[in-house]
Amino acid sequence: MFKKSSPASVATAMAHPNIAFIKYWGNRDDELRLPANGSISMNLEGLTTRTTVRFDPKLKNDTLILNKKLQGGNALQRVSAFMDIVRQKANLKLFAEIVTENNFPAGSGLASSAAAFAALSLAATKAAGLNLSRQELSALARRGSGSACRSIPAGFVEWLPGSEDEDSYAISIAPPNHWELVDCIAVVETDHKSVGSTEGHRLAATSPIQAARVEDAPRRLDICRRAILQKDFDTLAQIVELDSNLMHAVMMTSSPPLFYWNPLSIDLMKRVQSWRNEGLPVCYTLDAGPNVHILCLNEALSELKFRLHQIPAIEQILICRPGGPATLLE
Amino acid sequence: MFKKSSPASVATAMAHPNIAFIKYWGNRDDELRLPANGSISMNLEGLTTRTTVRFDPKLKNDTLILNKKLQGGNALQRVSAFMDIVRQKANLKLFAEIVTENNFPAGSGLASSAAAFAALSLAATKAAGLNLSRQELSALARRGSGSACRSIPAGFVEWLPGSEDEDSYAISIAPPNHWELVDCIAVVETDHKSVGSTEGHRLAATSPIQAARVEDAPRRLDICRRAILQKDFDTLAQIVELDSNLMHAVMMTSSPPLFYWNPLSIDLMKRVQSWRNEGLPVCYTLDAGPNVHILCLNEALSELKFRLHQIPAIEQILICRPGGPATLLE
Repeated sequence: MFKKSSPASVATAMAHPNIAFIKYWGNRDDELRLPANGSISMNLEGLTTRTTVRFDPKLKNDTLILNKKLQGGNALQRVSAFMDIVRQKANLKLFAEIVTENNFPAGSGLASSAAAFAALSLAATKAAGLNLSRQELSALARRGSGSACRSIPAGFVEWLPGSEDEDSYAISIAPPNHWELVDCIAVVETDHKSVGSTEGHRLAATSPIQAARVEDAPRRLDICRRAILQKDFDTLAQIVELDSNLMHAVMMTSSPPLFYWNPLSIDLMKRVQSWRNEGLPVCYTLDAGPNVHILCLNEALSELKFRLHQIPAIEQILICRPGGPATLLE
Repeated sequence: MFKKSSPASVATAMAHPNIAFIKYWGNRDDELRLPANGSISMNLEGLTTRTTVRFDPKLKNDTLILNKKLQGGNALQRVSAFMDIVRQKANLKLFAEIVTENNFPAGSGLASSAAAFAALSLAATKAAGLNLSRQELSALARRGSGSACRSIPAGFVEWLPGSEDEDSYAISIAPPNHWELVDCIAVVETDHKSVGSTEGHRLAATSPIQAARVEDAPRRLDICRRAILQKDFDTLAQIVELDSNLMHAVMMTSSPPLFYWNPLSIDLMKRVQSWRNEGLPVCYTLDAGPNVHILCLNEALSELKFRLHQIPAIEQILICRPGGPATLLE
């Protein structure tokens, strides 16, 4: 498709978004995206970002084509700032053409920036002739979007917060086939969200309860990690819902407050709780958007889908099993 | 109506419920209902509980008639335990007949227990021949229901948390006519709430963010008190919404979690925020129930009512101006 101007000047990679079980919200360092607390997530198979990076001596700027549309403004600026980090690492002066495509709606809490910067990290470093370890790749992806570091390793992933640029990266704590967990995403709104995560992270510290949320994080991480390793759904369900509620509690008590829930989100959260009380192995979690991620055991999936299809206000239901790592394609 | 068996053996009092601007949630001492933090509220004129207490040597137990229905179980037990405190103070051995009536729906976050125990404190002590000061009455009412102490003084009220039974009571910080503030209550559900406040207060400490909420309370109390005294609606609006969100954040992150909001509550909260952004002086606050209390300046009332009447899902709208103190009627 592309003419190679020099060896390895072009590369294509893919990555999945991830859903956080223990959330990332707020940074100790906004510039380096060093998180206030560790987090745990699962990659989402089926949702994919595919990105090609081509360095070209003829280009006078980076160009970004997202879902076949040429981008400018903030989107280009953010990607270009990230490419500067790659260029610095590779001691490279060339600009690049970046062509990226998602098979899922952007900007509705589906963590499109996580998959985007994971795929970009892999494609860009390869195209620049760098050969980074998974941990170095993860730390690099973090610079583009914090949660992107979790879309580098496979399956169930923990982001070790670290204390500086090099030691803040994510590792796999269990492979995708470890546990037949399914994320059933009830898409409630496909509109672009009003306040993006990068801006939201900056507001976290204005909430009077963010420090307490962060201080309690190691306890929640321990419970969640153990629940995954032991495949203990009920324990996972309780800690995942608590952690989601805690993050949204911080969001809606920051200045200005951020409300990502809408009426249908609340309706679904309450239904999921009552379904679990009836014995169905399901729990909810929400990222920075109104869509409700309903985690379930595979054995409950058909019953869950049946119940969700009876709620006409849900725009779309996406079914995601544990996904693999970011992968080089060409 | 009643035959007096001895001087002052019967008395009738009335009190209003109150809406908290800075919330009471969680106790340092559950038995004495010493609160984890101070709170500020406004009495609600128009909503009234009227209670008659008659001590009668012929009675073998206390009897409680609420809205013309004889009560047993928990309701009677709670009132009877409260009457024991009054009997002890008065050195009295007689049981009483308590007849009480509300002109508003019970158990839907309209703080019916606050008005109930405020009216009962005044009627019962008077009927028992006691003559308590306002502060003593407020501390006594607290023993029945924490927020009842705030329905004893007039208008805008602050509950000083204190450190023991005697010094934990509420005082008036401004009379009812100080400020033309209106509480427009959007009744969203008149069903009895699933988890009562007394039980909820016990769960507060299980939330990882309750300690931070309590620690930050003096700051919020200062801002709210000053906003009331200076009639600064915009400052009041921001601190009232923050404080409501903080309490509900603690509720939904306790174990088990308590969710008092329903989809219509969220819908109204978002509308109120956007109306204020447009310039209408309104803000929301929710007690332990789904009903949305919309505070507004009197000048905005007709516009607010017009907008609320266009939302068919709202069951009822109650309009309350700042109310007077608990008052003896006969």
